[in-house]
Parts: sequence; structure tokens; C-alpha cells
Amino acid sequence: MFELPPTLSQTVAAALAEDLGGDPNGIGWSDLTTETLIPANTYARGVIVFQEPGVAAGLIVIPEVYHQLAVRMGVPQAEINVKRLAREGDRISANQAVAEITAPARIILMGERVCLNFLAALSGIATMTRRFVDLVNNSGIRILDTRKTTPLFRDMEKYAVRVGGGLNHRRHLREQVIIKDNHLALLTGGSPILEALRRTSAADVGRVIIEVEDLAGLQAAATRGAEIIIYDNAPPEKLRAAGAWLREKFGASPKRPLLEASGGINLENVKQYAEAGVDRISVGGIIHSAPVLNLSLEIHPVTGA
Amino acid sequence: MFELPPTLSQTVAAALAEDLGGDPNGIGWSDLTTETLIPANTYARGVIVFQEPGVAAGLIVIPEVYHQLAVRMGVPQAEINVKRLAREGDRISANQAVAEITAPARIILMGERVCLNFLAALSGIATMTRRFVDLVNNSGIRILDTRKTTPLFRDMEKYAVRVGGGLNHRRHLREQVIIKDNHLALLTGGSPILEALRRTSAADVGRVIIEVEDLAGLQAAATRGAEIIIYDNAPPEKLRAAGAWLREKFGASPKRPLLEASGGINLENVKQYAEAGVDRISVGGIIHSAPVLNLSLEIHPVTGA
Amino acid sequence: MFELPPTLSQTVAAALAEDLGGDPNGIGWSDLTTETLIPANTYARGVIVFQEPGVAAGLIVIPEVYHQLAVRMGVPQAEINVKRLAREGDRISANQAVAEITAPARIILMGERVCLNFLAALSGIATMTRRFVDLVNNSGIRILDTRKTTPLFRDMEKYAVRVGGGLNHRRHLREQVIIKDNHLALLTGGSPILEALRRTSAADVGRVIIEVEDLAGLQAAATRGAEIIIYDNAPPEKLRAAGAWLREKFGASPKRPLLEASGGINLENVKQYAEAGVDRISVGGIIHSAPVLNLSLEIHPVTGA
Amino acid sequence: MFELPPTLSQTVAAALAEDLGGDPNGIGWSDLTTETLIPANTYARGVIVFQEPGVAAGLIVIPEVYHQLAVRMGVPQAEINVKRLAREGDRISANQAVAEITAPARIILMGERVCLNFLAALSGIATMTRRFVDLVNNSGIRILDTRKTTPLFRDMEKYAVRVGGGLNHRRHLREQVIIKDNHLALLTGGSPILEALRRTSAADVGRVIIEVEDLAGLQAAATRGAEIIIYDNAPPEKLRAAGAWLREKFGASPKRPLLEASGGINLENVKQYAEAGVDRISVGGIIHSAPVLNLSLEIHPVTGA
Amino acid sequence: MFELPPTLSQTVAAALAEDLGGDPNGIGWSDLTTETLIPANTYARGVIVFQEPGVAAGLIVIPEVYHQLAVRMGVPQAEINVKRLAREGDRISANQAVAEITAPARIILMGERVCLNFLAALSGIATMTRRFVDLVNNSGIRILDTRKTTPLFRDMEKYAVRVGGGLNHRRHLREQVIIKDNHLALLTGGSPILEALRRTSAADVGRVIIEVEDLAGLQAAATRGAEIIIYDNAPPEKLRAAGAWLREKFGASPKRPLLEASGGINLENVKQYAEAGVDRISVGGIIHSAPVLNLSLEIHPVTGA
Amino acid sequence: MFELPPTLSQTVAAALAEDLGGDPNGIGWSDLTTETLIPANTYARGVIVFQEPGVAAGLIVIPEVYHQLAVRMGVPQAEINVKRLAREGDRISANQAVAEITAPARIILMGERVCLNFLAALSGIATMTRRFVDLVNNSGIRILDTRKTTPLFRDMEKYAVRVGGGLNHRRHLREQVIIKDNHLALLTGGSPILEALRRTSAADVGRVIIEVEDLAGLQAAATRGAEIIIYDNAPPEKLRAAGAWLREKFGASPKRPLLEASGGINLENVKQYAEAGVDRISVGGIIHSAPVLNLSLEIHPVTGA
Repeated sequence: MFELPPTLSQTVAAALAEDLGGDPNGIGWSDLTTETLIPANTYARGVIVFQEPGVAAGLIVIPEVYHQLAVRMGVPQAEINVKRLAREGDRISANQAVAEITAPARIILMGERVCLNFLAALSGIATMTRRFVDLVNNSGIRILDTRKTTPLFRDMEKYAVRVGGGLNHRRHLREQVIIKDNHLALLTGGSPILEALRRTSAADVGRVIIEVEDLAGLQAAATRGAEIIIYDNAPPEKLRAAGAWLREKFGASPKRPLLEASGGINLENVKQYAEAGVDRISVGGIIHSAPVLNLSLEIHPVTGA
Repeated sequence: MFELPPTLSQTVAAALAEDLGGDPNGIGWSDLTTETLIPANTYARGVIVFQEPGVAAGLIVIPEVYHQLAVRMGVPQAEINVKRLAREGDRISANQAVAEITAPARIILMGERVCLNFLAALSGIATMTRRFVDLVNNSGIRILDTRKTTPLFRDMEKYAVRVGGGLNHRRHLREQVIIKDNHLALLTGGSPILEALRRTSAADVGRVIIEVEDLAGLQAAATRGAEIIIYDNAPPEKLRAAGAWLREKFGASPKRPLLEASGGINLENVKQYAEAGVDRISVGGIIHSAPVLNLSLEIHPVTGA
Repeated sequence: MFELPPTLSQTVAAALAEDLGGDPNGIGWSDLTTETLIPANTYARGVIVFQEPGVAAGLIVIPEVYHQLAVRMGVPQAEINVKRLAREGDRISANQAVAEITAPARIILMGERVCLNFLAALSGIATMTRRFVDLVNNSGIRILDTRKTTPLFRDMEKYAVRVGGGLNHRRHLREQVIIKDNHLALLTGGSPILEALRRTSAADVGRVIIEVEDLAGLQAAATRGAEIIIYDNAPPEKLRAAGAWLREKFGASPKRPLLEASGGINLENVKQYAEAGVDRISVGGIIHSAPVLNLSLEIHPVTGA
Repeated sequence: MFELPPTLSQTVAAALAEDLGGDPNGIGWSDLTTETLIPANTYARGVIVFQEPGVAAGLIVIPEVYHQLAVRMGVPQAEINVKRLAREGDRISANQAVAEITAPARIILMGERVCLNFLAALSGIATMTRRFVDLVNNSGIRILDTRKTTPLFRDMEKYAVRVGGGLNHRRHLREQVIIKDNHLALLTGGSPILEALRRTSAADVGRVIIEVEDLAGLQAAATRGAEIIIYDNAPPEKLRAAGAWLREKFGASPKRPLLEASGGINLENVKQYAEAGVDRISVGGIIHSAPVLNLSLEIHPVTGA
Repeated sequence: MFELPPTLSQTVAAALAEDLGGDPNGIGWSDLTTETLIPANTYARGVIVFQEPGVAAGLIVIPEVYHQLAVRMGVPQAEINVKRLAREGDRISANQAVAEITAPARIILMGERVCLNFLAALSGIATMTRRFVDLVNNSGIRILDTRKTTPLFRDMEKYAVRVGGGLNHRRHLREQVIIKDNHLALLTGGSPILEALRRTSAADVGRVIIEVEDLAGLQAAATRGAEIIIYDNAPPEKLRAAGAWLREKFGASPKRPLLEASGGINLENVKQYAEAGVDRISVGGIIHSAPVLNLSLEIHPVTGA
Repeated sequence: MFELPPTLSQTVAAALAEDLGGDPNGIGWSDLTTETLIPANTYARGVIVFQEPGVAAGLIVIPEVYHQLAVRMGVPQAEINVKRLAREGDRISANQAVAEITAPARIILMGERVCLNFLAALSGIATMTRRFVDLVNNSGIRILDTRKTTPLFRDMEKYAVRVGGGLNHRRHLREQVIIKDNHLALLTGGSPILEALRRTSAADVGRVIIEVEDLAGLQAAATRGAEIIIYDNAPPEKLRAAGAWLREKFGASPKRPLLEASGGINLENVKQYAEAGVDRISVGGIIHSAPVLNLSLEIHPVTGA
């Protein structure tokens, strides 16, 4: 089991509200077409199918969507049955079915687009993440995301990164200190890096991550207690030199700061970064540039339900 | 002025909550790094810059972000000044500044990532939409979006489509009838298209849109009152034939249903669809496959504020 | 001090949201005209004036409106000063000022319509209630309202009734048992009144009020423990007979049920009902048919604030 | 179909909460009398009847009330059937039934007062609006409402105006610029009208409406781009002169500002205003002074449900 | 019937959300163990039993818990039956059953801990309160609580005090004036007590309660209109003297301020305070130091439901 | 730094609402006494002092309380200064000050009771937990809490357990499987323990915890994959035997289930349980039976602020 996004149910409720025209607590949900065309007592079976291969992420959304629809539309739970045919993180082939829903037809159709939109976006991210992870696989190097996410969808996107084998950077600004160039730009006088680390160490804020732009900055940070150093926009050769310096300086000590590459990394060049000896590689694009996957829901009437 | 998304302020509040670790009403918002490193009385100027050319969408978010931060963090409005340097829909060149914020430095940094994430996603969509619109420009044909959107972000995404010159399909399922293949699949016995249109016309649900899969279906729908007919996954030549039939059948009558192409349309082939004589072209990809734009915020300390 | 409506602050917040286009927590509040025309640093004094005589109710809303506007718009409290020039329940003459607000002009204008709409409606109700109360004044008889109120505004309307000297019936259905004709219509078999009182006395639901339609029903209810009997739609002479029977039956016992007249009572005939010897008179119209009062806000710029 | 109030479902939820003693999401809803007297498995049919003639508005509330009650009280939708016997805007005669509800009796009674309160208030407004509209009917002149509405009920009230054939002014202050006397009073120095229009035209705020008090003000506004001019508190003869000036000045140009009468208009004098040649007439009283209509719900037990 | 806590239903909803991992409106409620082990169609009977003797408080929570669970989990009300076997305020013996629930087994178990936690805490408080009340029983003296309560649980705790026979002090700070030492410490210059009472009497704030520390303070307060005087941390003999002075000064006048003992009062010494002739005794410990009672829920499968 | 309760800010907001009579978003907050007695521009210094020795927990609440009060009451942040004089988990002696607040006096007093109520309850729990932890200190055995917590206060109580050196059991029912006697009672036929573990292992629900009542049950559970076994209500000698069996069966294998004692453990006997060789000891009483600590806030006027 992957750690679930803490806001999963709330996000599903908000997405249903968005697609059905009400509020997240079910007030006002309605589907004009379905209520006009399909009688309340028509039952059906819907099957969700991947149109192209990829890594599944977001299947957990499907039972949540249909549980909420049942409660909000006054349909007893007993009339709704959701069967998962694959698990989060599975590699799915084209035309493979991943879930089957038996329920009143109106309910199936009211949840269709919401289920597909989640699955398309999240499976896209998991698929992209998995491609990066596979490329650096033997190295033990971790692939990380960033805070460059779609507004309101971050927890789900970071969940998909985990499903794809990636690691998450901090969830939000109150969780973790990361010192970046814009912070340093405001610490005028003397050495901004030293001043910043002096302030964080005085404040008892836990583990400190810092972004540096050259070897001198990295060396300053490494000797003042930074635990992870992001060497931003550095080419593989500079990262190699930085890694060598860190290993020489700290040896096998657990106090050696971790070295993280970031900036300009893509599927073509990620192996070079991995071979440069870094510990972590962060790639905003595993979220913000992952293409959505193509999926569909096929529906059939059932009798006797 | 473009029609603003009805949920703009709420979406900004939720996005700030997401990035600052609290709830949308400002309870719990905090930035651990900034509060540790930057004194409350440090003032700064931040400039938001496009790193690549594109159509601006989302600039309206910036004053909203900083108004909300001021109120929620207990900073008097008078200490915050946001200056827009471009307008929604403007074509922006690489390295062009689009907004400037003067405020306490902490506040600027607390809003940075939220502003950039909105602008990057929305300007990406507006830019993509504009490319399609420009390609069909002389024809009077409208480019439309679909409901294939990112969960919780649809209103903003549809706003960006408008800014890019596109037209929006329905916002949600309770707003408008669109009869699709999955509805027809459940109307067993006789002709599903005729039965569906019979039911909608009995129900007094306003304008009816229907998706058809072949010319026979289109002809049935056209003669039973459908006002817009989406000929799904049809190649340009089939659309041309359908358009010819409609014009012959209805002439210049205002009762002629509009013909909409959808499915498999991209920047390479959109001109062919336009030349086939359709009235509208819907392209899910103007939202779900638009690459984000690259932007940055540069910050400088100011004195004397 | 009159007992305040329990939802006063929430109602004011919702009313501001309604008039400023956001949500009740201040997200999205804006006034396009004022923000375009009036600079943030223009200060003004506004005076709220009754255009016609009446009983003041709703003055308590004014400081609440301006406190909320200050907090939500980022204006320090110290810049806002609200002075009440009259008290709830006071009889106000035409052209009399009842409150004065000194504040940034934008803030005064953003609260104007909300303040006036509350005052106009509530003072109208208090004025109407007071007219009824004055007509029965020497008798000790109480004037009561009903649940025929404007949706979402009941607590405020019932507050205005108190300010006008009236008494409130129950606030909502979970607070108090009142047995009405529609309940009795569903208790088939035997005597519905006896059956209803049997069930309430078994259920330990506190004081029981019952509506009856004739003297026989009243007598049945009186002897089975009803504490208040509403003799609905009875003319004064029937009420007189009922009152006489009750006083003969119970004498001065505290167990004598109270007799309440309701239905068809207005300013013309209320004295006759009072003289018929009832204990209480309920009049839906003191709320639902009270004309709004006419008020205005006059504004003047001030300098040096 | 009339455009539905955007907050219909939320308003119904809040009204049910108000009458049942809980919160809008159904937490705590209860009816002490009904739960004590009526068993859960008693079914009934309720009929809603107009006691006096009028224009129906608010019938759309009835299915919404009963859908929400079913979901919140744990009654399957299938046990509830609401049949509308009239349509919004229909002219209803005294004693005519407009809707019939078959459902568990408890549920019918829990929704009774809420349904009636909506219908009584909204049908009252629609009836009053229709009277004004009928009086000016042949002229093409539109009857408009104002922002003098009951707090928290504006969207519903403005919906009833539409049902009655009226047109709505802006919904709230962030939607539309209307320059009024209180704005002009704060623009000291020179000509406030010219200064105001200079600022709005610089700010790109869309269509501008302005209120003037004399012909000179009207002429100034008309020549500086105001699109609608409200000539406030002017008698018919002054409006006639103003209309003549505008038609002479602008001829048939689409740039001619519309002329709107407001202030002091009632059923007795509205025809005179209409004959003065104005384009629009706004009447706050179609909302705030419309008498509520008299309605009732009659209930009968049913067997075998 | 005891007056119910105004927030009962909301508190239950929040407590269920807390124990089931969702939000108060039922979004996300789930029980991983139960859903894994127990089929949806297993029915059971659960019995709630006191493990030790005490005064019952909180039984009203049980039907509320199970009503909410039914609605939120999509179980028809008809499948849930809650039978109370005791009433609020009853003295319960060890091993006595107080309620029985018949329902789907999953639902019973999902509500178990929430029911028990409420009952254990509230019955503990009612039991403790009852012990104090019994000790002063013949005297007519009232036992009161304070605002030293568990955050977010005050309304329930004060309800339990009522059930145990105690009286509540104010619910919150906006309800009632109580002048305490910390207020007086800020009123520098002259006599703080006189100054404080001067300000409250000018402000028309209703009944005034004041805390004093010596007889002189009490005498000052008594002669300036305080209606209740809390003589804080005074031993019984000082209270006796104060009471004597008050009775001599005011005789049987209804204007005699009430005398309240507070500070350091416990089960051992409360009788001495009662015998000192005070009117009221406030004891924070009846809430904050009441031991929880020990209870359990026993479950058995049932067949044929 | 201890891991903060995820709902800290929301809980503080709700607690302020509870004590100030409004809603959690600051709507309606007011303190009648303070607003009547203390001018808005009186500044003061407040000091929070422990009246008895104990372990501090809840100090993090103080800045949160005062930040929220500042924002909600319209006081600029710059006028509020909170200084912590101790850290979470510190052992505090009687009469030691732990925090100092400089702010407008009204604001200090509005937050006083909320701060003290949190500190008293949480420090009480941390103090009690620390006593247990100290008693088993050398053993490596962990002290755990249970779900027997105060409704709505669980996250804070579990935080205090962490501050006192304890470990938390699951936060809620959707987080973790724990099989208890009531689950087993519903698994009729064959061996409930084996059946339960068969179902959990089929369902992929992560780590499984199970409660057993005798050695046979423990052995069954241990051999079917339970990872933690709670041997409920077993005396030390039985636990000793169980531990011996587990160590013999599994040796040093990481697959050896952990053994947890629970039921009837207190400060007097906890050492015996520790010496019996268990891995974990859960004690509901560290939360539900921890006495509150005694604290106070002393206030002094300051000048020149």
C-alpha cells in the first residue's frame, strides 16, 4: 500500500461537485442529461479501460467516487459494486480493463468523467515518474518532485509520484526549510549562505535543505550543517566534482550532506546526472509535464439487478 | 474584460492553503523558511517574468493572492502594492516582466509559487488555444474545450481557454444536455437517437447537443430538433459530406443544427477540419495537453518602505 | 438589552458576501465601483437616517458590518469608528439620524446597502409588532409571531419581534412540540387529539402546544395535559366561550392551559380578540406582511483622518 | 426555462437547516412533533394549493427540498415522488393545486413550511412584477429590480423577478459599475461626473451605469461614455425631456445611452413613466414591497406504498 | 428533559470524523478493520454497559451517532434501531446496560468508541457534580462550573453539569460580564472596583458579576450594583462574615447581591463552605478533575434481520 | 521538534470560537467584559506561570492563539509579541514562567483562558506519560496511548503523549487494522483468529495488529502473520510466558511479532509489566486519567507601546 493522499476524500468530493454543479457536501449535485434520459431503475455495468499502456495511479479514486455518489443521491450502498481489476503501480497494457462498476446506470454515468480525469492525470504522472526511476534504477538514486504542481491538486500529484516510484519533496512551506536563491538575495551583507544557516540553526527548525549555485556555496553550506544540498542548474561534470569533494571531506560519515541535482533534467540526460554520483535528482516535469493517459469507460445495461 | 471564473477567489484561497499548510480561510498559513530567515520588517520588490514567449492568462490571480495574504497575515493593505505590466490575453515575449509586487519580503515569497503555478498552467492553455484559434482564424469557426480537465481546476482552465480566444463547452453536468454514446447504449429497443430526443423534448430542458457516430445518426438527430451535432471521430471528408447535407436540407434557416468536429484533432490537422465546413471544433488537448509555460519571480530588497 | 439572535454575526457575514460577491469568510469581497472611483486613503463620515417614523430594530448590525469589513479588507480597527445615536426599540421620527460611521470612504460604501437592508426590514417588523402590542397593551395579552418567515432570515425577524414588544413562538421544529391539523389528519382511528396527546405524554417531550378547530377539541386537549391551546380561525365569540369554559373548569389553577387565538387577525380586529379573554394572539403578518421602512445613508468626505 | 438562481440548492439546504434546527449539511435535522406522533412507515400524499390567485414562482424548490430531506434523513430516493402540476410563471387561480408529494408522512411534514415560505415569498414577487410588466407591456420597456432585497435571499428574489417578466440589475457590487450620488459626493473639486467617468474609462471595467439628478448631469454623462443613465427621482416630464435630448443627440446610433427611470414609481404612476419614453424602469418595491401569497399544504394518509 | 447542548449534533459529527478519518460531513469516513473483516450484510446487536456505578450523562449521543452513521454510510434508517434503557441523570449500577443497538455490525462497531468516549467523560462529570450537589443538598445552595474546560468540549461538559444537578456559569466571553482580578489590574488610578462598575453601568451590559479578594472589595461592589459577587479563595469564616454583612446591609431585599464561593473547594470541605451561608459555590474540578467512568460495548451477531 | 498535531491551527481556531462566542473563522468573536472595561489602546504584558511542577506541553498553542486573535480582531501583527521561555517537553518547576505576551490588553485577555486550558490539559498528559516512561526507562519498552480520548481533542492529546516520551497508537479507524474481541465475536464458525488473519492477508491492508485473550490465541496469531499482538488483560506472569514462547519460536528473526501488554496497568504495577519482557505497554489512562496542571496568567499594564 502506498501512503494515501491525506485529502483524498475531500478532493474527490470537490471534483464531483465541480462536475455535477453543487457543493462538496453533495448539495445540488445533478446530471441533467442522465436524469432526463435514463430511468432511476436502469442498472448497468461500466468498465474502465486504458487506451494506451502506462502505470496505473488513481484507481483508489473509483470506489470513493461511487461511495460518495450513492450516499449523496440516496442510493443504498448495497446497490453499488466496484471491482478493481488492477492495483496502484501496476504496468497496464493498451485495452486492459482496470475496474468494473455495477450500479444504477445514472450513478455510473455521473461518476464517469471524474474517475477518468483523475486516472488520466495521475497515471500520466506515475508513468512519467516510472520512466525516470527505471533509467536510474541500479544506482540507488532517488527521483523527486517539486512544488511546481497544479493548484489544488498537489497532494494527488505527489501521490502519483510515489506510485511511480519517486520520492516527494516537502508538501508545503510550513513543513520543511528549503533555502533558495530568493531568500539569499534578501540577506544582504557578508555571506548570505552562512547567515542563513546561522539563523536556521538558532531556530531549531529541524533538517535544513539549501540550494546553491556554485562549488564555493556548496562547500560553505556543507560545513555549516546543511543536510541536503541542491546544486541547482549544474551540469553533470560540476555535480561530479561536488560529489567528489563531499565524499573526500566527509568520507563515509553519516554527516555527509546529500547532493541533489535539479534544473534542466529530462529523460535524455538523466542517466548522465545519475552517473555523476549525486544522491537525489529532482525533476519538476514528472508532474507538470507528464502527458495525460488516454482512458475510457464502456457501459452496458444489465438486467435483474 | 474576459468573464472571470466564478470561483476565482475561492480557488486562490485554496491554493494558498495548499502551499502554506492551512485551511482556505487562512487558519494555519505559515512559511517556515521565510519566517526563520527574513525579518518581518524587510521590504522588497518582486518581478514576475516570462522565460519563454506565450499568451498571458492568470495575471488576475496576482492581486488576489497578495490581498489575501495581507489580510490573513495581519499586514495592512496599505503596505502592499501590486502593479500589472500586461493584460490578460497579451502576447508576451521571452524575458518580459508582467507584474511587479512591492510588499514585506515575507509576503512576496509566501505568494511566489502560487502565482507562478497559476500563471504557468493558465498561460500554457491560453497559448495553446491561441495557436488553434489562429490556425482557423479566417473561417469564423470556433475552437472549444471539453470536460477533460484537471480535477478542481476546471473553472480556471476554461477561463484560460476564453483568454486564448476559445469558446467553452458546458461547465458541468447540471448545466446543459449533451447526449453521448454511453447514454445511447442504455436506450435499448428501437432507435436510441430518436428515443433520446423524444425524451429531451418532453422534458423541457433547453438546447440539446448530441454526439453521433455516422451520417445516418446525424440525419436522424438533425430532423428531430438537436441544435448542435457533434460528429465524433469523423475524418474531414465525412464531416464535409455531413456539412453539405445539413446545408442542403436546411439552407440558410436558423434551424440548421450546428456541426461540430471532435476527436483526434491536433495542430497538424486542424486546418483540414476547418476547411471541411464545420461550425465548431472541440479539442480536449487545448487544456489537458497544453505544456506549462516557464516563468520566474525575481526579488530585490528595498529600503525606506 | 434584547436577547440577540444567535446567528447575528454569521448572518451579517453572509449578507456582506451576498452584496460583495464572495463567501462569508471574506474571500472575494470587492466593490468594483468604489475601488475604481475612490482612493484607499479617502476618509469619510456616513450618517444613517430614518426617512419615516418607526421603531428602530437592527442597529446592532451596524458595528458588526463595519468590524467585519475592516478585518476582511485589511483596515486596522483603529481607523473605523461607529457611533450609535439611538437604541434598539426606540421610537424614531422622520429624518432622525440613528448612527454615524467614520472610516475610509470605501469601507463605508461597501457596507451601506447591507446596513440599510437589515434596518429597513427589521425596523419594519418591530414597528408593525409594536402597533399590535400597543393595541392590546393594557390586557397583559402577548402578541406572538409564527414560522411564516423569510427563508434564512428567521432569527433576525424573530429578534425584531422581540424588539417590538412581541413574544416568539418556537424557533424551529426540533425545539418544541406543536400539534397541528396535518398531524391529526394522519392519526386515523379513534380520536386523533387524544391519541396525539397520549403519544406526547409517553415520549417525555416537554411542554405540549396543540391547535384545535372547535370547542370539543379544545375540551379534549385541555383535559389531557395540553399546556397551550391554539384555537385556530375562531371568531372572538367562540374564543370568549372557550376562555369561559377553561376558567370555569380550571379556576385559578396554574394547570389551566393558556388560550391562544390565531388566524385572520389584523390591526382592525385585534382589539376584539383581546377583549375575548385570550392569553395570547399569534399573528404571522407581524413578520411576513410588515412593510419595510425607508432609510438612507448620507456621506461626506472628512479630512485629516 | 428561466435561468436558475446559482445558489438554489445551497439556499434550500440553509432554509431546511433553519426550520429543522441543524446545519446546512443535514447534521442535526429533526422535527420533534412529527417524530413523536407519526411512525416512520406511515406514507402520505401532500398537495400544495394556492389560496389566492397569482403568478407561480418557486415551484423548483419543491423537488429540491424533498431530495435533500430524503438523503439527509436516510430515506431511499425511490420512496419519494414529487409531481409538479404547474410551471414557473404560470398564472394560478385560487384553490389550484400546484404540486403533489407522495412520501413517508414525516418527510412531507418536515418540508412543508420551507416549501410554503419559499412559494409564498417568491410567488408574491413574481405576481407583483408581472403587474408592473403588464402595465408597460406594449412599450418594450423593461421593469428592473434593485439591491433593496432581503438579506441572504437576493438570488431567489431576483429569480422571482425574472419569472414575473422583469429584468435584473446587477447581482452584487463586484459585478458591475454603477456610479451613485454617494460616490459623486466624494469626488471633490471640478465636475464629479466627468471625473468619475474619466476614472472608469481608464480602469477598463466594462459597461458603465450612472445615476444623475438633473439634465445637465445626464448630458455630461451621455457625452462621456455612460451606457445606461439612471435619472433618479425625476417626474415623467423631466424624463420626457431627457429622452428627447438623447434621441436628438444620438439619433438611431447604438451608442445612445439607455435612459432609466427610478425612484417613487408605483402601480398607479408607472404608465406615465412608460409613456415618457424611457427605456427601463427600476422599482425596488417589486421585491421589498410585494405581499406574500397565501398557500397551504393538505395531507392525506396513503396505504400500500 | 435537560436543555440540550446547542452544538450536540455538530459535536457528534466532528467526533465521528475524528475517529473515522474524514470530515464532519461524512466525507471520507471509513473503518479499515471492520470493512476488511465483516461483510456488509452481517447484522448484530450491541449493548452498552456501565462497568462501575455512576450518574448517566450522554445517552442522547447514542441515537445521534447511529443516525449520522446510517446516513453517511448509505444504510437506510429502517435498518437501525437504538433503544435507550436508562435516562439522563439516572443513577446506574455496575454492570447495568443503558442502551441497545440493532444494526449492520459494521455500523455498530464504527460508532462504538465515539459513544463510549462521550459517555465515559460526560457521565464522569455528572457523577462528580452529583456528589457535590448531594453534599449541599438541603441548603438550596447551587453548585456551578467554570470556564476551565477541555477545548472544543465545553458545551457537552456544561450539559453534563446540568444533568448532574449543577448550574452553569456563562458559556463564553461574549455572553456575560464577569470582572476578574486581571481586569482590575489594568484599571490603574483610584479604585479599580468602582471604576469597573462605573463603566459597566454606563454600558448597559446587563447583569454584572465581579470577583473580589477581600471584604472591602465586596462591600464596594455590593453598594455599586454588582448582582453576584464571587469572593475568591476566601476560607469559610471569611465567607461567613461577608454573608452576614450582606444580609445586614440588604435584609430580605431582592437587591442583595448573591455571594459565591470559589477557589480551593473540594469534596472534603464543600460542606463547610455551604454552612458558611453562601448562595453559590463554583468548582472548576467538577469538570476538569472528574474521573472518566468505565464502560463497554458488547456485541453479538443476530440472524434474520 | 516533536511532530505537530496536523489540526493544531484548526483546533485553536475552534477553541477561540468556543470561548469568544463565534465561529472558527473569527466571525462574531467578542469579549463583553474586556470591551466594556479596557480601552483599545491599553497595552499590557502577560506572563504564563506554572503553579505546580510538570512537563510542559502545549506551549506551541500560545503564538497560534495570539496570531489568530490579531488577524481576526484587526490588530496589526506588529503590535503583538509572544516570547516562549521554555520548550515543549521541558520539566517545569512550580512558579516558573513559560511564556510572556506583550500586546493590546484586550487581546491578551481574550486569549488567556484558551491558552491556559490547552496548557493545563496537555501538560497534564505529558507529565503523566513521562512518569510512566521514566519508570520503564532502561528497558527500551515503549509506552503507548489508546483511542480512549476526549471527543474532538484526540490529535492534541496524542501530541502531548509524544511530548511526554510516549508512542501513539493509530490516530483513527481508517489508518490501521487492529483486530479486537468485538470483531472476533462476529466471525462465527471455526477459529475466528485464523479467519480474521486470512481476510486481512487477502486484503492487502498493511501491518496487522491483533488483540488476544490467551496463549493459544497468541500462538495462532503469531504463526499467521500478525505483526503486533496485544495480550489484553493478562497479568505479568502470563505475559512473561508469552514473551518466552515468542522468543523461542522466532529467535532473533525480524519476523517475531511484538508483544504488547494492555489493560489494568498503572503507575504502581507498570514496572512488573516491563520486567515481564514485553515490547510495548499501552495505557489509556495516560490520556483519560491524567490530572490537569494548575497554571495562571498574570497581567500588568505597560506604557509607551
